[in-house]
Amino acid sequence: MDLATALGLLVGIAVVVTLVFMGGDLRMFYDVHAIIVIFGGVLAATMIRFPFAGILHGLPMGMKFAFTVRSTHPRELIEELTQIAEVVRKNGPMALENVQVNDTFLAQGIRYVADGYDRDFIKDTMERDRDVFLLHLDEGQKIYRAMGDCAPAWGMVGTLIGMVQMFANMSDPSKLGPLMAIALLATLYGALIGNLICLPIADKLHVKLEEENVSRSLIIDGILLIRESKSPSLVKEMLIAYLPEQHRTELAEA
Amino acid sequence: MDLATALGLLVGIAVVVTLVFMGGDLRMFYDVHAIIVIFGGVLAATMIRFPFAGILHGLPMGMKFAFTVRSTHPRELIEELTQIAEVVRKNGPMALENVQVNDTFLAQGIRYVADGYDRDFIKDTMERDRDVFLLHLDEGQKIYRAMGDCAPAWGMVGTLIGMVQMFANMSDPSKLGPLMAIALLATLYGALIGNLICLPIADKLHVKLEEENVSRSLIIDGILLIRESKSPSLVKEMLIAYLPEQHRTELAEA
Amino acid sequence: MDLATALGLLVGIAVVVTLVFMGGDLRMFYDVHAIIVIFGGVLAATMIRFPFAGILHGLPMGMKFAFTVRSTHPRELIEELTQIAEVVRKNGPMALENVQVNDTFLAQGIRYVADGYDRDFIKDTMERDRDVFLLHLDEGQKIYRAMGDCAPAWGMVGTLIGMVQMFANMSDPSKLGPLMAIALLATLYGALIGNLICLPIADKLHVKLEEENVSRSLIIDGILLIRESKSPSLVKEMLIAYLPEQHRTELAEA
Amino acid sequence: MDLATALGLLVGIAVVVTLVFMGGDLRMFYDVHAIIVIFGGVLAATMIRFPFAGILHGLPMGMKFAFTVRSTHPRELIEELTQIAEVVRKNGPMALENVQVNDTFLAQGIRYVADGYDRDFIKDTMERDRDVFLLHLDEGQKIYRAMGDCAPAWGMVGTLIGMVQMFANMSDPSKLGPLMAIALLATLYGALIGNLICLPIADKLHVKLEEENVSRSLIIDGILLIRESKSPSLVKEMLIAYLPEQHRTELAEA
Amino acid sequence: MDLATALGLLVGIAVVVTLVFMGGDLRMFYDVHAIIVIFGGVLAATMIRFPFAGILHGLPMGMKFAFTVRSTHPRELIEELTQIAEVVRKNGPMALENVQVNDTFLAQGIRYVADGYDRDFIKDTMERDRDVFLLHLDEGQKIYRAMGDCAPAWGMVGTLIGMVQMFANMSDPSKLGPLMAIALLATLYGALIGNLICLPIADKLHVKLEEENVSRSLIIDGILLIRESKSPSLVKEMLIAYLPEQHRTELAEA
Repeated sequence: MDLATALGLLVGIAVVVTLVFMGGDLRMFYDVHAIIVIFGGVLAATMIRFPFAGILHGLPMGMKFAFTVRSTHPRELIEELTQIAEVVRKNGPMALENVQVNDTFLAQGIRYVADGYDRDFIKDTMERDRDVFLLHLDEGQKIYRAMGDCAPAWGMVGTLIGMVQMFANMSDPSKLGPLMAIALLATLYGALIGNLICLPIADKLHVKLEEENVSRSLIIDGILLIRESKSPSLVKEMLIAYLPEQHRTELAEA
Repeated sequence: MDLATALGLLVGIAVVVTLVFMGGDLRMFYDVHAIIVIFGGVLAATMIRFPFAGILHGLPMGMKFAFTVRSTHPRELIEELTQIAEVVRKNGPMALENVQVNDTFLAQGIRYVADGYDRDFIKDTMERDRDVFLLHLDEGQKIYRAMGDCAPAWGMVGTLIGMVQMFANMSDPSKLGPLMAIALLATLYGALIGNLICLPIADKLHVKLEEENVSRSLIIDGILLIRESKSPSLVKEMLIAYLPEQHRTELAEA
Repeated sequence: MDLATALGLLVGIAVVVTLVFMGGDLRMFYDVHAIIVIFGGVLAATMIRFPFAGILHGLPMGMKFAFTVRSTHPRELIEELTQIAEVVRKNGPMALENVQVNDTFLAQGIRYVADGYDRDFIKDTMERDRDVFLLHLDEGQKIYRAMGDCAPAWGMVGTLIGMVQMFANMSDPSKLGPLMAIALLATLYGALIGNLICLPIADKLHVKLEEENVSRSLIIDGILLIRESKSPSLVKEMLIAYLPEQHRTELAEA
Repeated sequence: MDLATALGLLVGIAVVVTLVFMGGDLRMFYDVHAIIVIFGGVLAATMIRFPFAGILHGLPMGMKFAFTVRSTHPRELIEELTQIAEVVRKNGPMALENVQVNDTFLAQGIRYVADGYDRDFIKDTMERDRDVFLLHLDEGQKIYRAMGDCAPAWGMVGTLIGMVQMFANMSDPSKLGPLMAIALLATLYGALIGNLICLPIADKLHVKLEEENVSRSLIIDGILLIRESKSPSLVKEMLIAYLPEQHRTELAEA
Repeated sequence: MDLATALGLLVGIAVVVTLVFMGGDLRMFYDVHAIIVIFGGVLAATMIRFPFAGILHGLPMGMKFAFTVRSTHPRELIEELTQIAEVVRKNGPMALENVQVNDTFLAQGIRYVADGYDRDFIKDTMERDRDVFLLHLDEGQKIYRAMGDCAPAWGMVGTLIGMVQMFANMSDPSKLGPLMAIALLATLYGALIGNLICLPIADKLHVKLEEENVSRSLIIDGILLIRESKSPSLVKEMLIAYLPEQHRTELAEA
């Protein structure tokens, strides 16, 4: 569970709810028009922008990855891969059948080594799987960003529709206030969807994409070294050398 | 038919119509001033921006491609090209006369091979046709983007004209509301033309452009390999190797 | 005459005039304050931004090129250059004295060849003339863009000045409407100057700049080939080969 | 102490406080709703955007570095390093034990030389420490920028919530003014947080990052030269040669 | 004196003053609150953004260079340098003592040659002086741009403070108008400072920076050639060859 994302969202909702209750009641802030125009409009523009398959993959995948955190960091992955190399060195690839790991991508690689697949097959299959995965995650990030960018515009559309109706009915001034309040709700919803949810999630997915790229490339490199029965110390040393600059300094820091 | 584009547009229109009817009647949202200023203004600015030929080609072509989807994906194209290579291997180029394909660009290439044109002619002609086609599609995308960018500005112009007239006639306050409502309609039209239609269509055309580039380049490569009577398995292997990274992973995923 | 630019501008003006007359009379939209602030302000900011010489060259030159269209397209230029090469081949450079062409830059090149100037002189002089010309056209484009960018800001300045005066005189509410109408006119003028005139003209000049660069480089290449008495077929072939990709496909398309 | 930052902030606060007192009293500008929505909202969006560790490191570090100034400039550092080289030349590395310097990073390097660590260890350790440090400072800069970018959006959210509540309660017009005043406070807070505090601090951190990179790289280069017992004049000459162009001119200027 | 800058500023001020007097009197547009918030706020944000030394150098230097024009253009500089080369050829470097030039940077170079300094010293010293000068001019440009970018934001802060005070005192509606007028003045001041003064000056400084770079590099090249007693015709030819493309065409054009 990515606590930062979850806590951030909770804090944001708490802030809005607090303000709402301090000034009156929740019903004042519920309006079916605004919900229709924001969710319907953002959905419509997103459907025109992206292919169907991309939306169906990207939306839930993005939501999932924004709220989960990798079970194993690069540093731990290097530890785990070194231990696995140790096992293979001592007991041969067969011994891998009993090794338990959290990371499903690493588990897949271990199974390939245990089953004795050749180097090229493992490399191609795992790199393809990593690329397909990153492609989808990136598409998810783009969809959240596009949604966050167009939500305020749809809020304005909703407010304009409400204001047109309000001004056209201006003969009864007593209704003006509540109608104006409702018209403003669409802008409020649009600003919240964009600034609290979609754009920050897109930014976080951008960070996760980078993380997953580093971790999965590390796993592929490690599995290939293990496949060739390199010594544990060599595996460790080479994996650290493969890491991009930034992650090496993070490792050093820990 | 590109269902995503069509459905997206339907959802967007449904959202707007629902909101309109929930708050009154449709006539409140129809104003000939707003229609003139948005459509006239966007047309005027687009005519100054682009050459005539480009607009006449680009507008309908963009609309067509935003709403249609390729009949054959890269994966199916490779299958089809492999089968054609099989036919040519077995029965010679003459046998191609009876082959039926959906894709017109592919059909054109098959006819060239059947008619026995030489390699250079086929390569030059097909590459030129692909480039002319992509050039026009790109111009269409740019026109939709420019229209989507200037629509809100013209909405503001319409609203300003309406407000000037409204304030100048302010002696009769009872008319103020309806006049204000009409003035806001231009902004509403501009926001809808931009955010619901033009900008999402420009984004989708950007995706289609990439798709068509990949598919047509694939067809050219395939036709040239078939022209040289390469074996079907070689054709398949080389076409997959020619594909850009991203499409190869999509292929693998299917 | 570039019909697209002229028609676009006419349509834009027609749109604004129609709206103005549908809602009242023209006088309502004429305000000397707004004219002073928009034209004066844009002039002031442009004078601070660019050197004098650039403004004096760039403004009229940009206006002229936005409204005129090249008499001869690359395709026709290649035809014309091929015919001239034919003449030189048959009757020698002297015969060029009687050749009539529309393009003044081409005419200048023909005169140089007829007068027997050497290759280096022709190349240097014509390339310098082309570069000076493109430099000025580019400066014109930049000036129109800068004017289009700052016009809305000056519209806001004018509206703010008007509103300050309006609010300061608020003791007489009956005057409020007309004063507000006048204040809004500056914003309207700024939006029209920017979105209808300056920015689209800057975009069109950007296209023209590219066109002139291609045409004049083509003429220089052609004149140099003719100077060396190359055969007409070689001149044609080499000129087509010199063309940038995009223009070659346009040629092929015709 | 970075006087510019501190004075700038003081001037900004003085400006706001002066205006507040000139027009009434401070209580008019204190509103708990606005504080909740700005601080809560910015906190929420920042938590979703960045990982926890980054926020905990980056926020205080950024604040500290924006308000402090390096005790020693490149010019003084070169002087200091030259003197240290002199000491080592004369009395050997042992003599370094008594050398006192202000800069902690330089002190660390001197201790390594005094303790006789080898060249590679010193280089790796110090470069890693510099990179980790710059990484955190850069993260701090990004966090302040993201906060400055989203503060105005949250101000708008707060104002929208206030306006909805105001319009919904419009039956009592006498309350309208104070409620509107409160609603506007969120926008005011957001604009001040963004334009007075977060964005200028992010810009200053960008400058500091560059400064620290130059100074710490200089220290590493100097320590390595001293480790190899180079002559003081050579140390000085090489360090000046290592400096980036801009800093060399600053040195020359002093 | 750079007439374009001075005239532009005069026209801009004339425009504003004309509008002010046409609608009432000047006092209506003078408000000490607005002056405090714009000048104080912009000063505060600039002090946080830039180091003190940079502001003290950059502000007056930028103002000076925006309003002055180089006494000698590249074309005239080449003429002058050719004449100086003539003098040195005929009478030796000593004769330079009596040569009078307007450009102080050129005068400095001539003195170095007359005093017989060696080539390397002249090159290093003059290049360093040029770089220090350009560094400061660039910093001036950045400061004016940053000020122009943040002035409208401070205008909004001032208007918000004014509006909060106005709405809080809404019990007396007769005061509403004048208070609103005063509140809008801050936005007006911010827009004028940004769009009339700071941003155009930053753009002009950008042009001047390029000009000074070309002229001073030309002077250094010329002085070094003269130091080596090259023939006047060679000096002229080489200096023209050193000029960047654009300036060569300007030279040719004159």
